[in-house]
Amino acid sequence: MQVYLDNSATTACSPKAADLVCHLLTEDFGNPSSMHQKGVDAEKYVKESASAIAKTLRCQEKEIVFTSGGTESNNLALIGAALANARRGKHLITTAVEHPSVKNTMRFLEEQGFEVTWIPVDPYGVIRMDDLKNALRQDTILVSVMMVNNEIGALQPVEGCGKYIHDYDPNIIFHVDAIQAYGKFHIYPKRMQIDLLSASAHKIHGPKGVGFLYIKDRTKIRPVSFGGDQQRGMRSGTVNAPGIAGMGRAAKEIYENLDADIERMYELKTYFTEKLQLLENVRINGKTGRDSAPHIVSAGFAGVRSEVLLHALEDRGIYVSAGSACSSHHPSAGNTLAAMGLDKAGQESAIRFSFSVHTTKEELDYTLGQISELLPVLRRYTRR
Amino acid sequence: MQVYLDNSATTACSPKAADLVCHLLTEDFGNPSSMHQKGVDAEKYVKESASAIAKTLRCQEKEIVFTSGGTESNNLALIGAALANARRGKHLITTAVEHPSVKNTMRFLEEQGFEVTWIPVDPYGVIRMDDLKNALRQDTILVSVMMVNNEIGALQPVEGCGKYIHDYDPNIIFHVDAIQAYGKFHIYPKRMQIDLLSASAHKIHGPKGVGFLYIKDRTKIRPVSFGGDQQRGMRSGTVNAPGIAGMGRAAKEIYENLDADIERMYELKTYFTEKLQLLENVRINGKTGRDSAPHIVSAGFAGVRSEVLLHALEDRGIYVSAGSACSSHHPSAGNTLAAMGLDKAGQESAIRFSFSVHTTKEELDYTLGQISELLPVLRRYTRR
Repeated sequence: MQVYLDNSATTACSPKAADLVCHLLTEDFGNPSSMHQKGVDAEKYVKESASAIAKTLRCQEKEIVFTSGGTESNNLALIGAALANARRGKHLITTAVEHPSVKNTMRFLEEQGFEVTWIPVDPYGVIRMDDLKNALRQDTILVSVMMVNNEIGALQPVEGCGKYIHDYDPNIIFHVDAIQAYGKFHIYPKRMQIDLLSASAHKIHGPKGVGFLYIKDRTKIRPVSFGGDQQRGMRSGTVNAPGIAGMGRAAKEIYENLDADIERMYELKTYFTEKLQLLENVRINGKTGRDSAPHIVSAGFAGVRSEVLLHALEDRGIYVSAGSACSSHHPSAGNTLAAMGLDKAGQESAIRFSFSVHTTKEELDYTLGQISELLPVLRRYTRR
Repeated sequence: MQVYLDNSATTACSPKAADLVCHLLTEDFGNPSSMHQKGVDAEKYVKESASAIAKTLRCQEKEIVFTSGGTESNNLALIGAALANARRGKHLITTAVEHPSVKNTMRFLEEQGFEVTWIPVDPYGVIRMDDLKNALRQDTILVSVMMVNNEIGALQPVEGCGKYIHDYDPNIIFHVDAIQAYGKFHIYPKRMQIDLLSASAHKIHGPKGVGFLYIKDRTKIRPVSFGGDQQRGMRSGTVNAPGIAGMGRAAKEIYENLDADIERMYELKTYFTEKLQLLENVRINGKTGRDSAPHIVSAGFAGVRSEVLLHALEDRGIYVSAGSACSSHHPSAGNTLAAMGLDKAGQESAIRFSFSVHTTKEELDYTLGQISELLPVLRRYTRR
């Protein structure tokens, strides 16, 4: 049996989205910037995709800027907003548990003379509103908070943040990294007072190499790369019509039965975490209920290094992740677990299981069976 | 009959490359950063692609950094090299006929305090070596020269530039925008003394949304976006294995019979330009021989605005470009023609025909027939 439980690293592209990508690569292959019919045809797919995505966010089509993926979206959001607003102030706020594409971009901005306040998290990986409140200053221009943490699935109170930030100062730009949240939650930027929102296609069964940044109308932001001024000048480069069309299709599919799919995923998460906790010395990192993401379970298997368990599971056809797996071959990059106060042993024995809408109870039962078989063996081996 | 002569805007993806993209999207869909077998499998495709591309350039695999396309490659090359070497000097050199992804990036660097010398071109769109020689200074850190101009197919003497630049100062970084040249010429960066070289997949029948930057080993350059430190930290973001695999396949295919293919394209170009010049008041912009690119013909049709002819040809199934068509819906962006000294009327009547390896004599005969029918009609219409 093959069980892929690494859907937060990447997902299989849906067949319909892949077919559409292929169709635009080989048949309707025009450059959307071309003035002739082949260009117009390609442009139509791009507009359809923007429209499909805009519907899921209840925003305008023109508020969607397509990028090459989540990392580019986060870079554009942070650098673009920081540089465009530097005259108003140079203070930025983010959390201690962001993905490297936010964390390292913030560090770059620190080098450029910006000051960053890093909000800590509680033992469940969640920020406290009071810490955000205390961090806000007159010269704050940008706050970036991820919606769903990629390592443990912690859900941040972004709606509360949006309200508080804009009550404090409506000019502060609020960015949400929704790369692990889009396609798992109903996210309405206007209602949640989000100005910038990043998402990635390959996390929602869309193609790799494409993502988007929602940019609320009239948000002050500048492009960070330069060229033919495609996408109203915000993101130059030949518009990747095949990838964009595939993402639109995937977004439509994932939101089609979202409520039922998510309900089922929460039930699976509850089932899986309850069963895991029946095993000896297994600890769940973070929350497991409706106040967490439906698709991510992080568990610590005391006495077994995560790479060892990962490879043992792999031998039995089960694919999971140690650490975030979004950063390249750095299993120790688990900055979320450290920020939660977990000790080194806890960090080094953590495994992330991440579900998709296609994950079944049978797959989880098989996984639980293999873990319970492997654990005592690996622990004995480790002790020697 | 349908005749696509806009291959410099974009090409149809080869069926084999598209199949490979699709296979990696849906089957071997792992994240190359994942530690398990699914990640290893995906990584293998990425390595194979780097190897295939490295063979065409006679370089090392690790000298290839994958990007989201030509624009990103040019941005990374110029901003990355300028920032990494700013302490040595702040003088940059480029030409007056670069693509917007170089031109506008250079303008951004001007804003950042760099000084840029813009080398002019002769009436054929080619730079003079003396102008480059005169531009070089002690504080020059970077020279960027495109190999094939996207508007008229002018071929710049990059090998001569490389030698002269590095004889002058081996520390100067020499960047070549080879987006229109890769897949049309044998390009050996080491022999040609090129330090950085940009290419794009969708110009060589590969997928959209992917490109590469060749970075000569030990070249001083810094990344310009931040995240999980994929690709040895030079370009963060989930590695787009499907797109990269597709590009590798396309590169392999295009170089398989390059010499014969290019020979045929040059013959077609000669045939087409000779026939065009038999028509009344038609002027070829730039050179047409082996000292130009094999796939681009720019012609001015006096008395007919290019958009008018473009749409008239489109009605007859022929797809061409007015201006560069790489920049979004700015038909007047033809900065090359202006730099060559062409008057406004000449610029506004220019049409670009760009061939692919699949272009046939029959297609060109059909195109010539339609043009000779349309020209007198459109000219009469314009005169009224």
